[in-house]
Amino acid sequence: MNIALAQLNFHIGNFEGNTQKIIQAISRAQSENVDLIVFSELAVCGYPPLDLLEYASFITHCEESLEEIAKHTKNIAVIVGCPTRNTNQYGRKLHNSACFIADGKIISVHHKALLPNYDVFDEFRYFEPGELFSCIRFKGKKIALSICEDLWDLDDSALYSEGPMDSLSTEKPDFIVNIAASPFAKGHASERKKVLHANAAKYGIPLFYINTVGAQTELVFDGGSLVMNKDGNCVAEMKYFSEDFQVFELDWVKTARAVPFQSDLLFTDNPESEVRQMHQALVLGICDYFRKMGFSKAVLGLSGGIDSAVVYALAVEALGVENVLAVLLPSEYSSEHSIADAIELCNNVGGKWEKLPIANPVEATLRVLNPLFEGTSPNLTEENIQARIRGLLLMALSNKFGYILLNTTNKSEAAVGFGTLYGDMCGGLAVLGDVFKTRVYQLAHYVNRDREIIPQNTIDKAPSAELRADQKDSDSLPEYDLLDAILEAHIEQHKSEQEICAQGYEPALVNRVLKLVHTAEYKRFQMPPVLRVTRKAFGPGRRFPLVAKA
Amino acid sequence: MNIALAQLNFHIGNFEGNTQKIIQAISRAQSENVDLIVFSELAVCGYPPLDLLEYASFITHCEESLEEIAKHTKNIAVIVGCPTRNTNQYGRKLHNSACFIADGKIISVHHKALLPNYDVFDEFRYFEPGELFSCIRFKGKKIALSICEDLWDLDDSALYSEGPMDSLSTEKPDFIVNIAASPFAKGHASERKKVLHANAAKYGIPLFYINTVGAQTELVFDGGSLVMNKDGNCVAEMKYFSEDFQVFELDWVKTARAVPFQSDLLFTDNPESEVRQMHQALVLGICDYFRKMGFSKAVLGLSGGIDSAVVYALAVEALGVENVLAVLLPSEYSSEHSIADAIELCNNVGGKWEKLPIANPVEATLRVLNPLFEGTSPNLTEENIQARIRGLLLMALSNKFGYILLNTTNKSEAAVGFGTLYGDMCGGLAVLGDVFKTRVYQLAHYVNRDREIIPQNTIDKAPSAELRADQKDSDSLPEYDLLDAILEAHIEQHKSEQEICAQGYEPALVNRVLKLVHTAEYKRFQMPPVLRVTRKAFGPGRRFPLVAKA
Repeated sequence: MNIALAQLNFHIGNFEGNTQKIIQAISRAQSENVDLIVFSELAVCGYPPLDLLEYASFITHCEESLEEIAKHTKNIAVIVGCPTRNTNQYGRKLHNSACFIADGKIISVHHKALLPNYDVFDEFRYFEPGELFSCIRFKGKKIALSICEDLWDLDDSALYSEGPMDSLSTEKPDFIVNIAASPFAKGHASERKKVLHANAAKYGIPLFYINTVGAQTELVFDGGSLVMNKDGNCVAEMKYFSEDFQVFELDWVKTARAVPFQSDLLFTDNPESEVRQMHQALVLGICDYFRKMGFSKAVLGLSGGIDSAVVYALAVEALGVENVLAVLLPSEYSSEHSIADAIELCNNVGGKWEKLPIANPVEATLRVLNPLFEGTSPNLTEENIQARIRGLLLMALSNKFGYILLNTTNKSEAAVGFGTLYGDMCGGLAVLGDVFKTRVYQLAHYVNRDREIIPQNTIDKAPSAELRADQKDSDSLPEYDLLDAILEAHIEQHKSEQEICAQGYEPALVNRVLKLVHTAEYKRFQMPPVLRVTRKAFGPGRRFPLVAKA
Repeated sequence: MNIALAQLNFHIGNFEGNTQKIIQAISRAQSENVDLIVFSELAVCGYPPLDLLEYASFITHCEESLEEIAKHTKNIAVIVGCPTRNTNQYGRKLHNSACFIADGKIISVHHKALLPNYDVFDEFRYFEPGELFSCIRFKGKKIALSICEDLWDLDDSALYSEGPMDSLSTEKPDFIVNIAASPFAKGHASERKKVLHANAAKYGIPLFYINTVGAQTELVFDGGSLVMNKDGNCVAEMKYFSEDFQVFELDWVKTARAVPFQSDLLFTDNPESEVRQMHQALVLGICDYFRKMGFSKAVLGLSGGIDSAVVYALAVEALGVENVLAVLLPSEYSSEHSIADAIELCNNVGGKWEKLPIANPVEATLRVLNPLFEGTSPNLTEENIQARIRGLLLMALSNKFGYILLNTTNKSEAAVGFGTLYGDMCGGLAVLGDVFKTRVYQLAHYVNRDREIIPQNTIDKAPSAELRADQKDSDSLPEYDLLDAILEAHIEQHKSEQEICAQGYEPALVNRVLKLVHTAEYKRFQMPPVLRVTRKAFGPGRRFPLVAKA
């Protein structure tokens, strides 16, 4: 039996596009004598469709797409993810389902039972869990079909006591198929592999795991679909961060020898490849954001500093140098090297840049405020005005010429509120919003892996917002390695103040940093969408009440 | 048996404040010979605590607060809402619980079984549902204790087939206690009453319903706690939108005569009182946002138009006229009457105002952009620059003097993207973000109920953004009564394009409006928190993917 895995990049709500993509893959599979082709979770509508699921017309579109797909299944079977209606009297209106289609007919529909409802996932908001499970009988084989989280009920799971495999395994299936939509996060691929390995090994049968690929606003799905032999060893690993299509012969899979597992190299204990993956995720994140929104051109402000330099390099890779406009926005506090470094960066890739000095609009703004500001001393207000004039100029270019403004705020800044709302926090997409400053440096080194793109001076100099004379980030913040360690413990590992202090950090510093994080909640509320590359990113996966006392 | 209902305004995460408030109410109850005092859902930590629940230290604080409360329960019993740890091997780490405390000890803990996970509610994100239920035995009575949604499993419920009362009722309880955190939305109070009535009537016993009160960022809890007699008739209705404390004698309640139900008058088929409730909700929403964030002063731009006039009036009522600064930001396109109307509004309440003309900074900005804009015609870009200079000036005042900027965007504008991101969409709180334009007029009339506060000319004139010569909203949008009807059908009633057209609206218009709604998703993503006054507000209760095709 030949089984094809079609790892594709779907577009949420683009039923025509998704259906065509699915039908083309089926057609290719037919030409390669495939018996069964498998698509990812909610492939028909794209994942995650969120509240679009609450519109009856959206579900009708899903059903029409399934019917269209079914028409193209002559002599082939298809497994494809799609929301379906809950026909029981009670419960949420939908199921998150995998449909088994063969020879023009929807033969059976299998509902996801374990619904993730943590971090960025809200599946209980929409779906009723499946409760009855049975294997698919196809060409003399029994297939145990499940959806993503359904396999995550392993012995060490704290969340689930049992899952569909407990019931499916009693039918003695020949192999497992799991269709997924599992987004990238640093370190997640190796955990995924561990879980899939454990399932195949536990039941002693091959496992076919198909993931979706492509970015959907904040979430970057990384692909990397897997095939495990009956011992749970990985015998095939599909591409990361791009579409892929591969065909496997079942008997070969059963006993095939294990291949070295890329993601072991890529994800664990190897800082260099961790950075490489993050780089690929961010490039794909930018690329799909623009493509799926129907835009092609980006604009951003280049300060000569490391954050905007890295965003520029990522954008150039994602969109092509001809589609990225860099804008220098110098003020009286900008150092000579800031301008020179920014220009050098553009010249290194042959990119176009413009210079818009901000002094006059800043001056005109302060003159208007002067009667009210009389008797006050310059403070953060005047610094914010500079940042906001920059945002204003960049947004004017965005509006006039149809560019999307890229935001360059990094995760450390976003965490402690080191940035100006409506100023440098403007933008359509926060490219580095989930990347701590210390990792921004790693990305810069990675960008320069073959040749110097980001000027060495940009990497070497002390970080500064350059909003007043001789300003350095370290005037108001601890050194970034220290800051990032505290932030990671608090935000990504959910450690409390006491626990972080117990790790040996200075209590007064920990207290100050955590207070800053809490106080900046209102700024992050209005931040652009953040490309998620860790297990806990700012955005929909992290929800805090603004009025809370902490 | 004397039962006290303590309807209080808690502050999320303010354990010291909440605990003191609870202890004071207990003390008052003791002095009034109360046997049992009842507090609302998650009273100990405030509702909704969101991801603060994911910090172990937060749960420890809850436990310590409970212990402190228990110390003050000599000769009295207390029912109070608090998150508790799930001690089973599997499942989410917490329960949403009601603790029964008496004579210094936590006697029993009762877990919420029906967890709302729709709209603004994410209870499956944190809590494991309760599965075992038993009545509290207290002074010879059996109490059926449940938490909010637990009573919403009525015969016509599509969501739940059964709830805790199915099991509790077999013990033949003497009365029902339901502790809740049920936020205000237009029309919700009468639905709430219907459900509570049906429960009391079904089981033929009295029902004590305690709701929380006060605003938590977007959500405004309206109080209105209820007592039903054994026939399900309302015998007491506590205050709306403010704290309240009342004591009831059980035997009296059983047979007391029904009182006229305020909220029947207030909520149903009575546009005037619907507006009154919305007005109270918005005033409380502003008040608590400031108080709980630790601010007292607001600033906003007054355009002479209806939206900013209504926000100004609401802010004056919530914060006091001495705490609200109005700023006029005229441009070359501002009409004479705009300035006169704004000044008249301030004078009507004795409020202070400042005038900051925007011409010079706008001019200076355009001069910087001139080399790049050469050969282009003025369009939305130039209009946005005006709006953004206004935002910039207002934020400068906010930064310099510690004002919170109030946003004046209404729901109709937010829906169709008729507003400038980082311009008039700036602010800490979107006061009217859930109020359609047609309702803004109703609010204006209500503000003027006793005397003219908002100038009649502001109410009468045609709406205009005044960003170019002779501009009217109706140049680019349909009339608001038509627009709002389509928006309400789509956003609040989840109707699709086809369904709305089937109601008789012009298909081309419906298509255009729905496209605008979809396209503006990215703007709303960065909008300030919106005070929720309908069943479907922009914000955390409405989640759409930005990159979707619709």
